[in-house]
Amino acid sequence: MPRISTKGQSMPDSPIRKLAPFAVAAKAAGRRVLHLNIGQPDIETPDIAMAAVRGMDRTVIEYSPSDGFASYREGLAAYYGSVGVEVSPEQVIVTTGGSEALVFAFQACLEPGDEVIIPEPFYANYNGFATMAGVKVVPVASRIEDGFALPPVAEIAERVTDRTRAILMCNPGNPTGYVYTDAELEAIRALVLEHDLYLFADEVYREFCYGEKPPRSVLALEGLDDHVVLMDSVSKRYSMCGARVGALVTRNAAVHQACMRFAMARLSPPTLGQIAGEAALQTPRSYFEEVKAAYVGRRDALINGLRAIPGVTVPTPGGAFYAVARLPIDSSDAFCQWMLSDFHLGGDTVMLAPASGFYATPGAGSDEVRIAYVLEEAAIRRAVEVVAAALAAYPGRNA
Amino acid sequence: MPRISTKGQSMPDSPIRKLAPFAVAAKAAGRRVLHLNIGQPDIETPDIAMAAVRGMDRTVIEYSPSDGFASYREGLAAYYGSVGVEVSPEQVIVTTGGSEALVFAFQACLEPGDEVIIPEPFYANYNGFATMAGVKVVPVASRIEDGFALPPVAEIAERVTDRTRAILMCNPGNPTGYVYTDAELEAIRALVLEHDLYLFADEVYREFCYGEKPPRSVLALEGLDDHVVLMDSVSKRYSMCGARVGALVTRNAAVHQACMRFAMARLSPPTLGQIAGEAALQTPRSYFEEVKAAYVGRRDALINGLRAIPGVTVPTPGGAFYAVARLPIDSSDAFCQWMLSDFHLGGDTVMLAPASGFYATPGAGSDEVRIAYVLEEAAIRRAVEVVAAALAAYPGRNA
Repeated sequence: MPRISTKGQSMPDSPIRKLAPFAVAAKAAGRRVLHLNIGQPDIETPDIAMAAVRGMDRTVIEYSPSDGFASYREGLAAYYGSVGVEVSPEQVIVTTGGSEALVFAFQACLEPGDEVIIPEPFYANYNGFATMAGVKVVPVASRIEDGFALPPVAEIAERVTDRTRAILMCNPGNPTGYVYTDAELEAIRALVLEHDLYLFADEVYREFCYGEKPPRSVLALEGLDDHVVLMDSVSKRYSMCGARVGALVTRNAAVHQACMRFAMARLSPPTLGQIAGEAALQTPRSYFEEVKAAYVGRRDALINGLRAIPGVTVPTPGGAFYAVARLPIDSSDAFCQWMLSDFHLGGDTVMLAPASGFYATPGAGSDEVRIAYVLEEAAIRRAVEVVAAALAAYPGRNA
Repeated sequence: MPRISTKGQSMPDSPIRKLAPFAVAAKAAGRRVLHLNIGQPDIETPDIAMAAVRGMDRTVIEYSPSDGFASYREGLAAYYGSVGVEVSPEQVIVTTGGSEALVFAFQACLEPGDEVIIPEPFYANYNGFATMAGVKVVPVASRIEDGFALPPVAEIAERVTDRTRAILMCNPGNPTGYVYTDAELEAIRALVLEHDLYLFADEVYREFCYGEKPPRSVLALEGLDDHVVLMDSVSKRYSMCGARVGALVTRNAAVHQACMRFAMARLSPPTLGQIAGEAALQTPRSYFEEVKAAYVGRRDALINGLRAIPGVTVPTPGGAFYAVARLPIDSSDAFCQWMLSDFHLGGDTVMLAPASGFYATPGAGSDEVRIAYVLEEAAIRRAVEVVAAALAAYPGRNA
């Protein structure tokens, strides 16, 4: 029997997936499981996008160009213009979700053995994309006490070696919900220029920002045209995760050309998803205002509820729809599993994501969980009640 | 300015893409370009699939499970049963096109530096997926004089080294249209077992077979359960290339598990494409009969027409919708470009794919072209007239 490859063996499994059978069992036992473990919002996809798919005037679902439909790239360039970023349609490659944009960037820019510095906790699947490219993830810790702000630049600079080729950042952050300040972005900019690094920026949560100012895109930073590769996605913005449509945006012509060759090898991003995505560009501003208002209500219900539980630490996230909370427990992997297998409150239990999957440093985040506030406010309130009762009953609770 | 990766530099560019600007210019000059260069059929997507998308009962385009919707995997398992292959839904991973199935298989099974043997000419994008995985493609020549039959097994065996890990075959073949005989499949089977190799089989053209017997799937070969990884796709079968839905099928549990980890990293295959794909499983048999009849007519028009041109050699393809023809010319790259830039017959010209992109051996296939008979019969006949006149006028014609 032929062997599995080293990469195949070392692709990370997800702590959430390990919990999945326990969620199935809990449901089979008649429990209601409140899913705060994944970033699949319950928000409806904009009508205009659904109508475009339902009403499409086609008889063949054909390939699109490898970089996406020209009309869609033009629409995306106009969208970026509306958020303060000047790019041309030729600088945009439509990808199969934000995931593929990351794969292209890693493959096009990094050699096997190269290092990419990522503030942790970070989106767990970055590890998988790094494994695929043979790239080493070098974490630099952000701290829950600081609200998961950017670690001091000196700490990041310490991680730079002769193999460091890129910094990867997510803004607003998954899993932290942190939104980088202008000063932090300027600090990253200086570091990137000093060491001639790529700056990979995952900005898929751009529209989910609850402060007064929208977050600044790294494409709006000066002097980084050759350094920045932006990853974007329609998944969260328009609540159409299953469309599998994202974008890679760069002003670096050599990177664009290399990414295009990866894009051509896989022929085309999804045509139907692009029809939805292009129509979604016309989503009225009121949609986002309503969605943001809903998330602020959910966030506040979650954060206020959690803070009322003794021993729980949780910063207020400024964006996205996640929070990372520290719980008074021995192990979040064990606690999350125990909630599903051994606990319910009046028939209700909660599935959370252990934060261990979001850290590359062994042992880090072992008492933290990521909570996605993707359910309606009443369900969030109930989930907090369940978690509070679970913590009170949990045998692995800290003294 | 940070450098591009070695992979980014070495990703192959396509000879077809290099021709694209010349096709654009020809159209700008008022010419009609008959596109026989790509595998985008003009056949309509089955009504049942279009209706499923138009009539979908959803308000959110959500993620599907990473291995695809369970109902779709059940339907696919039933489909494979109907073509003589017993597999369970748990042995199927729905992928983002056949392309992603190849990427997963290469990544999960092969180490950087490993070798995969592929009969050439072969689908050009195999080179790209090999580059992504750091894998070396080792071609073994099939011959136009033999109709592109499997090369003698001894010649394949000669290519096996201590780094050989897999054989990759495409049946029916792109670009050759060749359909392997049972004897050839048995010869491959013996070789795979003798050297303990993976057998990657691209069977996306399964339904396009014009002989009396349907082609045998490698999943129907005995004793290869641990060796076979099948790549499939809805793109050609239902003329929905833009759905970006394919499948990876293997009975090797370790390979399945490793591929699942790559699948989880990219979250989900396209939801809308799966809706179309699942509905398409109910496509009536009459659809395929009509499509096959159309392709047989097109094929015969093409082959008979080409054979009437002095100096042209072209085997009769038994499947798919491609033919590889040898032309009496110095260079097919030059000829294909010249047809677009310098030739027309009554305003019509033809775009063909130079075969150079389908060979890994330098210089091989330099006088061959791939012709996709994806237009209606009248357009095929006209294209043959244009090619005949072009060959008569071409300055680089062989004496």
